[in-house]
Amino acid sequence: MLVSTRNKIPARVVGITKGDATANVELDAAGLRLVAAITVEAADELGLREGSEVVALVKASDMMLAVDG
Amino acid sequence: MLVSTRNKIPARVVGITKGDATANVELDAAGLRLVAAITVEAADELGLREGSEVVALVKASDMMLAVDG
Amino acid sequence: MLVSTRNKIPARVVGITKGDATANVELDAAGLRLVAAITVEAADELGLREGSEVVALVKASDMMLAVDG
Amino acid sequence: MLVSTRNKIPARVVGITKGDATANVELDAAGLRLVAAITVEAADELGLREGSEVVALVKASDMMLAVDG
Amino acid sequence: MLVSTRNKIPARVVGITKGDATANVELDAAGLRLVAAITVEAADELGLREGSEVVALVKASDMMLAVDG
Amino acid sequence: MLVSTRNKIPARVVGITKGDATANVELDAAGLRLVAAITVEAADELGLREGSEVVALVKASDMMLAVDG
Repeated sequence: MLVSTRNKIPARVVGITKGDATANVELDAAGLRLVAAITVEAADELGLREGSEVVALVKASDMMLAVDG
Repeated sequence: MLVSTRNKIPARVVGITKGDATANVELDAAGLRLVAAITVEAADELGLREGSEVVALVKASDMMLAVDG
Repeated sequence: MLVSTRNKIPARVVGITKGDATANVELDAAGLRLVAAITVEAADELGLREGSEVVALVKASDMMLAVDG
Repeated sequence: MLVSTRNKIPARVVGITKGDATANVELDAAGLRLVAAITVEAADELGLREGSEVVALVKASDMMLAVDG
Repeated sequence: MLVSTRNKIPARVVGITKGDATANVELDAAGLRLVAAITVEAADELGLREGSEVVALVKASDMMLAVDG
Repeated sequence: MLVSTRNKIPARVVGITKGDATANVELDAAGLRLVAAITVEAADELGLREGSEVVALVKASDMMLAVDG
């Protein structure tokens, strides 16, 4: 499957915090800590657990930029 | 300034494609290619050009996950 | 590839309006008109043209609900 | 009310999973399963329950596209 | 129409920058400057021009918070 | 820090509803009620409590517009 999403970040799951509706999935991307908030349903469907290899997808229009100043 | 955004990815600008309203800013994040779509106004205000050091900010709820399968 | 995105809508491309940075892709999803705004780069990479079969992906947290009232 | 949101998908509520902050609302849109993650407050304010007729709203910039490949 | 979107900000259009695909609509909300990036199609359909009274809608999950620090 | 986010709304925290993963932060912005859904982790890291002064950040592409009609 090819996706239009421009940002594809390989990462590994290092922790999952599940609520009733939302799961915050903590990731290690080459030493950088990331967090993805997805539905609990999706986390279960993808079989995510500590150690799972994933690709974090982010639409270009959802990425903001900051500079010192 | 502390932001609630969970994902903060240090990167360097390697290219900028400007339309009338939107600018696609191509980034190199430790060898990983990223693209941020921001307003042209913002790109100008932040003084972005090739070589600019930035931090890409992504809200946890804007990050999706994919696995092989 | 399995994605965490909950909403997967099969559709066919019926028109593409390209700017310098953004492409608005008009879709027909079983008679329902949809529009996806993606980067021009992505539209080209996916080889999108009129008649292309696609799946529109929408994160659950990006879907709002409205009711009469 | 006219909204700038390009994607308006008529649907019916078929299930609601409520956490403390977020409610995942499962929808049937002409046989297609959709899920909207909204605040519990919003779900209550809109009086959503199984059978409620709704319109799912999605901004064009929040719709990604995938193709086989 | 009742919407699940939690943030409804009354504002007045003070400028519009149109590209081929995207329109950046500059707003005055009780003295606060806001910018909404919508499709050109939507801006035309809503008949937006300088002086138009609008309500800016923002999903709770699209609002980030920053504090000094 | 300069951010590309176009919308910066000064506000004060007036309430926080915490789930396991997500916190809905209720704000007063010059008399206007706003709600931001952020991760519980972020709410704790920013030390948010009733009375906290914050800036609500919203990307231009996450702002929709509505008009009477």
